[in-house]
Amino acid sequence: MLRRYTVASCYNHMAQSATLLITCPDRTGIVAAVSEFLYRRGANILHADQHQDAALGLFLMRVEWDVATFALDTHFGVDFTPIADRFQMRWKVSQSATPVRMAIFVSRYTHCLADLLYRAHSGELNCAVALVIGNATDGEQLARFYDVPFQHIAVSAGTKAAAERQQLALLQQHRVDLIILARYMQVLSPTFVAQYPQQIINVHHSFLPAFSGARPYQRAYERGVKLIGATSHYVSDELDEGPIIEQDVARITHRSGVDDLVRQGRDLEKLVLARAVRWHIEQRIVVYGNKTVVFD
Amino acid sequence: MLRRYTVASCYNHMAQSATLLITCPDRTGIVAAVSEFLYRRGANILHADQHQDAALGLFLMRVEWDVATFALDTHFGVDFTPIADRFQMRWKVSQSATPVRMAIFVSRYTHCLADLLYRAHSGELNCAVALVIGNATDGEQLARFYDVPFQHIAVSAGTKAAAERQQLALLQQHRVDLIILARYMQVLSPTFVAQYPQQIINVHHSFLPAFSGARPYQRAYERGVKLIGATSHYVSDELDEGPIIEQDVARITHRSGVDDLVRQGRDLEKLVLARAVRWHIEQRIVVYGNKTVVFD
Amino acid sequence: MLRRYTVASCYNHMAQSATLLITCPDRTGIVAAVSEFLYRRGANILHADQHQDAALGLFLMRVEWDVATFALDTHFGVDFTPIADRFQMRWKVSQSATPVRMAIFVSRYTHCLADLLYRAHSGELNCAVALVIGNATDGEQLARFYDVPFQHIAVSAGTKAAAERQQLALLQQHRVDLIILARYMQVLSPTFVAQYPQQIINVHHSFLPAFSGARPYQRAYERGVKLIGATSHYVSDELDEGPIIEQDVARITHRSGVDDLVRQGRDLEKLVLARAVRWHIEQRIVVYGNKTVVFD
Amino acid sequence: MLRRYTVASCYNHMAQSATLLITCPDRTGIVAAVSEFLYRRGANILHADQHQDAALGLFLMRVEWDVATFALDTHFGVDFTPIADRFQMRWKVSQSATPVRMAIFVSRYTHCLADLLYRAHSGELNCAVALVIGNATDGEQLARFYDVPFQHIAVSAGTKAAAERQQLALLQQHRVDLIILARYMQVLSPTFVAQYPQQIINVHHSFLPAFSGARPYQRAYERGVKLIGATSHYVSDELDEGPIIEQDVARITHRSGVDDLVRQGRDLEKLVLARAVRWHIEQRIVVYGNKTVVFD
Repeated sequence: MLRRYTVASCYNHMAQSATLLITCPDRTGIVAAVSEFLYRRGANILHADQHQDAALGLFLMRVEWDVATFALDTHFGVDFTPIADRFQMRWKVSQSATPVRMAIFVSRYTHCLADLLYRAHSGELNCAVALVIGNATDGEQLARFYDVPFQHIAVSAGTKAAAERQQLALLQQHRVDLIILARYMQVLSPTFVAQYPQQIINVHHSFLPAFSGARPYQRAYERGVKLIGATSHYVSDELDEGPIIEQDVARITHRSGVDDLVRQGRDLEKLVLARAVRWHIEQRIVVYGNKTVVFD
Repeated sequence: MLRRYTVASCYNHMAQSATLLITCPDRTGIVAAVSEFLYRRGANILHADQHQDAALGLFLMRVEWDVATFALDTHFGVDFTPIADRFQMRWKVSQSATPVRMAIFVSRYTHCLADLLYRAHSGELNCAVALVIGNATDGEQLARFYDVPFQHIAVSAGTKAAAERQQLALLQQHRVDLIILARYMQVLSPTFVAQYPQQIINVHHSFLPAFSGARPYQRAYERGVKLIGATSHYVSDELDEGPIIEQDVARITHRSGVDDLVRQGRDLEKLVLARAVRWHIEQRIVVYGNKTVVFD
Repeated sequence: MLRRYTVASCYNHMAQSATLLITCPDRTGIVAAVSEFLYRRGANILHADQHQDAALGLFLMRVEWDVATFALDTHFGVDFTPIADRFQMRWKVSQSATPVRMAIFVSRYTHCLADLLYRAHSGELNCAVALVIGNATDGEQLARFYDVPFQHIAVSAGTKAAAERQQLALLQQHRVDLIILARYMQVLSPTFVAQYPQQIINVHHSFLPAFSGARPYQRAYERGVKLIGATSHYVSDELDEGPIIEQDVARITHRSGVDDLVRQGRDLEKLVLARAVRWHIEQRIVVYGNKTVVFD
Repeated sequence: MLRRYTVASCYNHMAQSATLLITCPDRTGIVAAVSEFLYRRGANILHADQHQDAALGLFLMRVEWDVATFALDTHFGVDFTPIADRFQMRWKVSQSATPVRMAIFVSRYTHCLADLLYRAHSGELNCAVALVIGNATDGEQLARFYDVPFQHIAVSAGTKAAAERQQLALLQQHRVDLIILARYMQVLSPTFVAQYPQQIINVHHSFLPAFSGARPYQRAYERGVKLIGATSHYVSDELDEGPIIEQDVARITHRSGVDDLVRQGRDLEKLVLARAVRWHIEQRIVVYGNKTVVFD
């Protein structure tokens, strides 16, 4: 078995914290009510941030506090409900002591898988990688090195429905609440996506909405763009149209062939996917409309 | 006289707003107290942001609200003082209807001057350029084009004290509350600086703390760095050591001569200086220790 | 009249040089032949760069030499033709002593105009701004400040053909060989474009091919992208589809409204347009297919 | 044993090539002579680039050709010597069929090690990782996973000389010609460095020359910079003063604690080190003075 190689000493040892995410119609008094609520219970607020979308009349808030003086327990819901009702809030609370259980889907390209497994293992990501599912076996040895179960499920046009049933069963069995498509070269069915709303993160190898769909590097090369990009986003029913979480770009030149774009793109893909995963895990993302707020 | 060329239609017409900046020791209840205070007075909050420096036990907050339902008047100070006292706050309130009165100091390089005058004139910066002071006359025609008084005050080792007295008199006369050193090639005396604490913004043509002092582009070239930078910062008594507001960099290659660094650097200087000026004007910056918080 | 405000001392005073651009089928011996040709004539090469497109079997080359020991004269064409014929070259030679004559087309947004006029005036761009043509009068005062003739030509659906005839006559009269569309909000007719092949540079306010067409900032905002961009390109018959010269991006957040995108975008537009203009003027760009090679 | 997980299909399968690097005093006729030499031998040039340092009167050139029609053999030196002598060239020729043999030195932080091992294994880097040497054992399992010998050599003040003798013996035994310090937290002695001139690449976790020496992230945090950086460079006798190969930066905010800087910095370190390693392997770097030319 793998000894945890001890890089942890360099990482962020945050206090155990609880995080509350709120979305509601914008009106006066929300911050006063929430901060009063937390103040009365002795919560020591570590971070608080809020956002208003004036056009939509929407208010969004994230508050994170130290659980040392105000721990989450079963009373929280009961106590907070009056405020939530008063302001018509959609809200979600979670605590860092319960790591997100993550599954990684992968095909033949393993760079994002290797990157995520290393980050998770080293403690940079506060999550448990419960499972790697591959429609090829290229990721198997990496998964095993990091002591993560690997399941090979081949997918073809004829077997897709059965494959998805098998995948869903495994996700349930491993109590997965976040799915990462780490250059997984298959489109998930609407039925599958509906099971994990805003819980599936994909990385697309272009600066969306440019070059959505197939072979983006080839098309970027042909168009003669001077920057290439990568995009991480939640998966929705429309291909490459889900809410964007993060994007980044790299400069290329006329000397860059398609192979160079693919190579440079791999580094972008790793970065934008890893950031999205971390932000999701740290409860920093709120989706509204087809957009995301990322509270930093 | 110059007709205001009407680009204004594309710019941000914000509601008239008031902004409150707060710094105080960190403890529970601050946000609850401030938001309750504003809520009771009917303030419609447009933006709110806060920051804690855990190491220093410091709390910083910025709140901006629409004056339509809660206008700043002479009562504000009286009303807010109990809260300020309770939490030992340093605080400052201002409103957008009173544009900052700005003076620009310039020497022979006029690119930052031209850039700032255009931005101010077009309405991008909510300020009045009250005065341009040059220790050379290169900026005179630009200033006159934008209907801004230009004063030539030559500075040499022997005349510096007298020059500064003349400058200070002009600043008072024009009721200036922000001074921009737009590639002004003179070091201000501690006496001068003390008159305008955190009200003088300089742009240094390097990525500080690298290459502080003279001839940064030449030294960057000689060191063989692969990126050059520029830094905007508040002026303090120590040269190039004041609180950094903004920095940016640009990639160079072995093909870049010192002239190319100077040319690319000009674009960086304009950008980092313009951002700093805008953030200062919009009351987004709080200085603490030798650092800045920039609330976005 | 405007005195040239003397920033020139900080700029690149290159030796007078000649530049040869070559495109031809790729085969062995081209560099040997060209460098032998220049060597025999005593040319002191300042820069040389070449590129092969393996897929298209194309060879592209740029050579710049000091005219002190090998000046361009009428013999050049005669002497070089045997080499050009042997390798089926398309070639172009020019010298820096003959500044490009440039016209700037502008509508109501003047930030790119102000930026280019300043750069040209200060000596950063080796060109003569022969003329500014506006379909509004917003740019008039800026043009006059820099001693550049301004011509107002209103354009509407009904008057477009006549307007273009008038524009073309002015361009001829002023011997213009480069046209810059500095946020000119009109589409030029194919007839017009055909008169100035690869001599018209446009700036589009998005990261093409994303958000080609109208209102790109609004659409970027709606899609929820995390970076915005700008693109400078040669104008071809298809809107926003010409060969891309330069692109750049800036990071935005959920806090950025459309107004913020417009504001940040202006800085990108200025930069990508100014770089494209400089590269064109310095004979650094070769178009092939629908792409550009930018020799740096 | 580890099966090579087959991502190779996406990577650059370059033709086998030979690369010639030249440095010599700048004068006319060099390119003509070299290109004539290669032309006569039927070399199909894949890439050629050159650079002149006007201040130093130095000429630098890189030519890469397909070995299919002109293979490197023992005659090359004999044939090329007359040209080399005529122009007083320092030159070096190599071929891609002979992968660089690389050793990686590591301490407790393994992110750069994991990154390089993955890149080497996947075929992105044309090298053989001959050996990993750790002064801690944290990298051992990663090395073994990738089938690379790992040697633990503890280093303390008292044992340093003996440790270096052991290291040097291992490097010889494994025929290593490139040493990567992948966050190796020890300073090599001048004696050691002298054995591998311009063959040792280090990554420093700051934007040099800012924050050279110890604890750069802590000091960047204290200074309040708005960007952090990382630098890869050849190791010379002076700490953090060797020729810079690559640098990159990332934006931070007032919200970023030292832990965040460390986390963001890891991604920078991986990128700037991996680029430097690739460029070295592909014979793209020439050192002159204390600077590098990186031919792209």
